[in-house]
Amino acid sequence: MVPETAVLNDVFIGKLRGIVKNRLSTARSVREQHGHDESYHASHLPDAVVFPTDTEEVIDIVKVCAEHGVPVIPFGTGTSLEGHVAALRGGVCINLMEMNKILEVNAEDMDVRVQPGVKRKQLNEYLRDKGLFFPIDPGADASLGGMAATRASGTNAVLYGTMRENVLAMEVVLADGRLIKTARRARKSAAGYDLTRLFVGSEGTLGVITEITLKLYGIPEAISAAVASFPDLKSAVNTVIETIHSGIPLARIELLDEVQMEAINKYSGYDYPVKPTLFFEFHGSVNGVKDQSIAAQSIASELGAADFQWATRAEDRARLWQARHDAYYAALALRPGAKGMATDVCVPLSRLTECILETKKDIEKSDVLAPIVGHVGDGNFHLVLVMNPDDPEELEQAKELNRRMIGRALSMEGTCTGEHGEALSVMIALKTTLDPGDIMNPGEIVDLQNQ
Amino acid sequence: MVPETAVLNDVFIGKLRGIVKNRLSTARSVREQHGHDESYHASHLPDAVVFPTDTEEVIDIVKVCAEHGVPVIPFGTGTSLEGHVAALRGGVCINLMEMNKILEVNAEDMDVRVQPGVKRKQLNEYLRDKGLFFPIDPGADASLGGMAATRASGTNAVLYGTMRENVLAMEVVLADGRLIKTARRARKSAAGYDLTRLFVGSEGTLGVITEITLKLYGIPEAISAAVASFPDLKSAVNTVIETIHSGIPLARIELLDEVQMEAINKYSGYDYPVKPTLFFEFHGSVNGVKDQSIAAQSIASELGAADFQWATRAEDRARLWQARHDAYYAALALRPGAKGMATDVCVPLSRLTECILETKKDIEKSDVLAPIVGHVGDGNFHLVLVMNPDDPEELEQAKELNRRMIGRALSMEGTCTGEHGEALSVMIALKTTLDPGDIMNPGEIVDLQNQ
Repeated sequence: MVPETAVLNDVFIGKLRGIVKNRLSTARSVREQHGHDESYHASHLPDAVVFPTDTEEVIDIVKVCAEHGVPVIPFGTGTSLEGHVAALRGGVCINLMEMNKILEVNAEDMDVRVQPGVKRKQLNEYLRDKGLFFPIDPGADASLGGMAATRASGTNAVLYGTMRENVLAMEVVLADGRLIKTARRARKSAAGYDLTRLFVGSEGTLGVITEITLKLYGIPEAISAAVASFPDLKSAVNTVIETIHSGIPLARIELLDEVQMEAINKYSGYDYPVKPTLFFEFHGSVNGVKDQSIAAQSIASELGAADFQWATRAEDRARLWQARHDAYYAALALRPGAKGMATDVCVPLSRLTECILETKKDIEKSDVLAPIVGHVGDGNFHLVLVMNPDDPEELEQAKELNRRMIGRALSMEGTCTGEHGEALSVMIALKTTLDPGDIMNPGEIVDLQNQ
Repeated sequence: MVPETAVLNDVFIGKLRGIVKNRLSTARSVREQHGHDESYHASHLPDAVVFPTDTEEVIDIVKVCAEHGVPVIPFGTGTSLEGHVAALRGGVCINLMEMNKILEVNAEDMDVRVQPGVKRKQLNEYLRDKGLFFPIDPGADASLGGMAATRASGTNAVLYGTMRENVLAMEVVLADGRLIKTARRARKSAAGYDLTRLFVGSEGTLGVITEITLKLYGIPEAISAAVASFPDLKSAVNTVIETIHSGIPLARIELLDEVQMEAINKYSGYDYPVKPTLFFEFHGSVNGVKDQSIAAQSIASELGAADFQWATRAEDRARLWQARHDAYYAALALRPGAKGMATDVCVPLSRLTECILETKKDIEKSDVLAPIVGHVGDGNFHLVLVMNPDDPEELEQAKELNRRMIGRALSMEGTCTGEHGEALSVMIALKTTLDPGDIMNPGEIVDLQNQ
């Protein structure tokens, strides 16, 4: 067990400098940048930040940390909303953004091997003239290492899946400095335990990701997007459910309530109707997309949608999705100086309408400003609780809303971040086996010090 | 560590009988049925076979086995081709086929919860009038528990994925008798380590699966299948690659070489041309399937395909796929009394033509009868080495062909069953943590006794 805050001595710092030379900082401003993400979560500063440029350096850093029992916290763009990167027990933050090379594109096999600091927009720009793209899109221009570590999802998970389905293999530095490859590049494998999936979503608690092989997709022949406004939340959510059930292969379907739409209009200068709204996107052949669009519009219209606006030109679509991706910042801008508590639940589709409507009622009964947005095609939605975390009463009210939302989701056979149930003991066993010294992002996922 | 073969004493058998009453057998004929699968692998008989009817019984059986250090081997239909169920160290075989209830269909959420002994055809018959189906189809009418345990793939993995992508959650009895749920029923989860994927493909070595929640799909509006013959293997494989690259969303694409086609004609009374052949299937809307079919046929024709035969009626398609599924038995029937060694490799698509052609050349240089079949859309193909395993020379020649095929696949960045590389140490650590007594299907995946 490491001490609550590891204070780094000169010998230790000297060893790190021997590895990364001047790419190490203990300056407070640098540590502050690396002690929080974009959420309300309190900062926890690392004691030092290092910027390795290759896998060998990462191995050496981890070995030194293991020898001294110092925590290791991998860091990408810091755009998480869930406090993943806080250095809860201090230690060494490994900023992986200098490792940002696209190592190998196999266009024929539709895969790519990248370093963890490659950002998703950088990758897609690089791929564009090859007719390929990487679809996972969590909104922020996150690093692919961070997206793998947090099992990122996003607006088009309903068609392309999440990082779980799109990481083919990884190279990981374990807690003792050993380097492993979790799988080979081939598409299928019946070879042993699924280590790739064990490390995807492990949030830096089992090792440091130093390479990722990702599945790519052909850029669809046709893409079409649409915005539809609804008289009430219920008809919008029911449109989602009916569209999914009809078998239309939606690429994206996003719900934004009227509070969120108002925020977006103000933040980005749009004039969308201030009503519950769905954003759609369809991918496919020209005829296929036409068929899908007509079918979806017909369902939406029957359920009361007005203002079906189409966006087929790339720049119009980009503008539309930018608005959706700015939702979090737009929500915060409703109340300057406020911070956001992003909540995340997922329920079976059959319970989605009920879950969202009860949550909405609960928000309206409180004083908290809380727009609703959601990747609703998977039964997944979020609140952004906009509040002042320094006001204990506000913070408590927000936490209480979140607690009730989680309880509601769980009672509907849903999930939420951090809910492990009876499987917790297995997760503790896995963590203990792969990181016996509890040095890898300690305190996240399963907290070995507080069991 | 358990002894090489656990001889079960009366006290132990008495305890098992207390749990399962008369649903226990130590008769040699029953043990023989449970000591092998449908492959050439040598039999390894369990010392007893039990037939539990519910999860509580499985828990109690595993607890008694754990207490006595006796191996536990879960058993489904015994249709594996890779020796998964051999009781390498003796012990108790748990036949799960009495646990064959479909527990809960959530049509709206498109999921189903089943016991492990439910067979895939039974499930699809049950689902048919709900307009839903479970697509994974490894050929044999396997149990869903066995399919999850072996991470089964099949002819339509290219569109629907494998068991890895289609198991939403499982209930598992661990080596000490603890019961865990690996996840909840919701589609996405960012909650902790991905235990579902850890147990999918673990081949009974980490626990006994007692419940499985599976993703379902709507039965497509239109389905169309086709058979195309090619002048040579190369043009057939290249057709696969070009079709995949063109973005046509194939539901199935299967390669059978001329040796396999001859075997099928003889075994099933067909009169397909004795040439390298592709079987296609397309799923989608009526127009979508039409577009796909035309596009695929045009690629195949350009590469030299003749005899494009369409099958759109359900009974014609059933006949076609039955022929494909009988491939293994048809191959064995080429030489009455022979046994099959099924080999399984997967390479990146860009190396597939080269890998198959080199393998074919290698077969032709040998005396071994070895038809080629493959789920080639994923770069995955098989040989069935038809031989007499009691003839040491033949067995060695077959093993040598297989070794060269594996070496070839690995050199092309492919995978094969049992190839773990540097990640082996992590797999050993996981196995040791979750099954410290090495009682769960010992000897499979990672052999703790031979490291």
